[in-house]
Amino acid sequence: MTTGLVLYGYWRSSAAYRVRIALNLKGLSYETRPVHLLRNGGEQHSPDYREINPQELIPCLLDGERVITQSMAIMEYLDETHPETPILPIDARGRARVRALAMTVACDMHPLGNLRVLNQLESQFSADEAQRGEWSRHWIATGFNALEAMLADNAATGRYCHGDTPSIADACLIPQLYNARRWKLPLGEYPTLQRIEQACNELEAFQLAVPEAQPDAPVSA
Amino acid sequence: MTTGLVLYGYWRSSAAYRVRIALNLKGLSYETRPVHLLRNGGEQHSPDYREINPQELIPCLLDGERVITQSMAIMEYLDETHPETPILPIDARGRARVRALAMTVACDMHPLGNLRVLNQLESQFSADEAQRGEWSRHWIATGFNALEAMLADNAATGRYCHGDTPSIADACLIPQLYNARRWKLPLGEYPTLQRIEQACNELEAFQLAVPEAQPDAPVSA
Repeated sequence: MTTGLVLYGYWRSSAAYRVRIALNLKGLSYETRPVHLLRNGGEQHSPDYREINPQELIPCLLDGERVITQSMAIMEYLDETHPETPILPIDARGRARVRALAMTVACDMHPLGNLRVLNQLESQFSADEAQRGEWSRHWIATGFNALEAMLADNAATGRYCHGDTPSIADACLIPQLYNARRWKLPLGEYPTLQRIEQACNELEAFQLAVPEAQPDAPVSA
Repeated sequence: MTTGLVLYGYWRSSAAYRVRIALNLKGLSYETRPVHLLRNGGEQHSPDYREINPQELIPCLLDGERVITQSMAIMEYLDETHPETPILPIDARGRARVRALAMTVACDMHPLGNLRVLNQLESQFSADEAQRGEWSRHWIATGFNALEAMLADNAATGRYCHGDTPSIADACLIPQLYNARRWKLPLGEYPTLQRIEQACNELEAFQLAVPEAQPDAPVSA
């Protein structure tokens, strides 16, 4: 489906990865405009990009003239403007559960291990690579412990985080698991998360969204 | 309006403060159940509370038998289950703008200055009070710079963050401004944020939600 949607992202950003999954689940084609987070002092800080998103963060979605920032807001927007193939349940209780699972990743895990946060740990506390890894693993493990408890033995959990339809909760969880592996966090304590990941990764929507499949991924990745 | 709603919170938590604003804007009465974040090693880690919310964070809303966690999910839930006095715009574009403003606080500012994060800075990097303050001010200033740019000279901004109706964006912004003052961040560069704060603070919904007005606030506060 031709949409005129443009996604500013970065291959390895887990927030951009979420939005790619959501776009794919909805079968919406989009143009990718890579913003290289490490090159030229961070292209997200360039005057041109700041004009589009004053927060100087990716992802950012253009829908014609409209600029939508923040991955969670983008996914909700896509669900409202393209209601076919919903990525949130219909009932308020289910929607709240899915959003709470998604926010556990988006508010309490991912922001703490973001590039800019690791850079600040380095500049303010001289944190070396090992210490930044310890920091990242601490927050990912804390969040995964909670998610495993929220998902295991819960009647609302199905093949995916909520029933048998992938949702924004899965779109947040899978990139966070990818991120956990980068930090070499052992995942043995999270059998439910791993089971859901396996189910998601069987879907083309998730396969096409992986960082290594993006046009801006380095050839060696 | 008698609702049977119960809010687990803490007087000074800015995430709980958000939900109190949302409940008040909707005119919903609720029972407060304080969870003391500093007493007894943190009551949010008690087995009883963990049973309710495995994430061991507040706030948490009970709606009868339903347990809703995560402040953003709670506010969306309230808007869906009590659509009178909406706290999100009707149009998708407006909803996306309000959510992006709210998420800028909820994802990229507040989680970085949370109690557990400051504790981790202390235990992992021996960060003292001054360094924790520097850290907190850095992230609040970064976020406020973005919010000021997103709100100033934008035709969609009105008396409040979005038009002339208070929304979840205001419910996130006002507690973050309260938090910024605790950290003694100078606010002179944020005239739009301060103007909106003044408008919000004229409303009873915001007045009744302030930390010092809560039953668990210390008498000296």
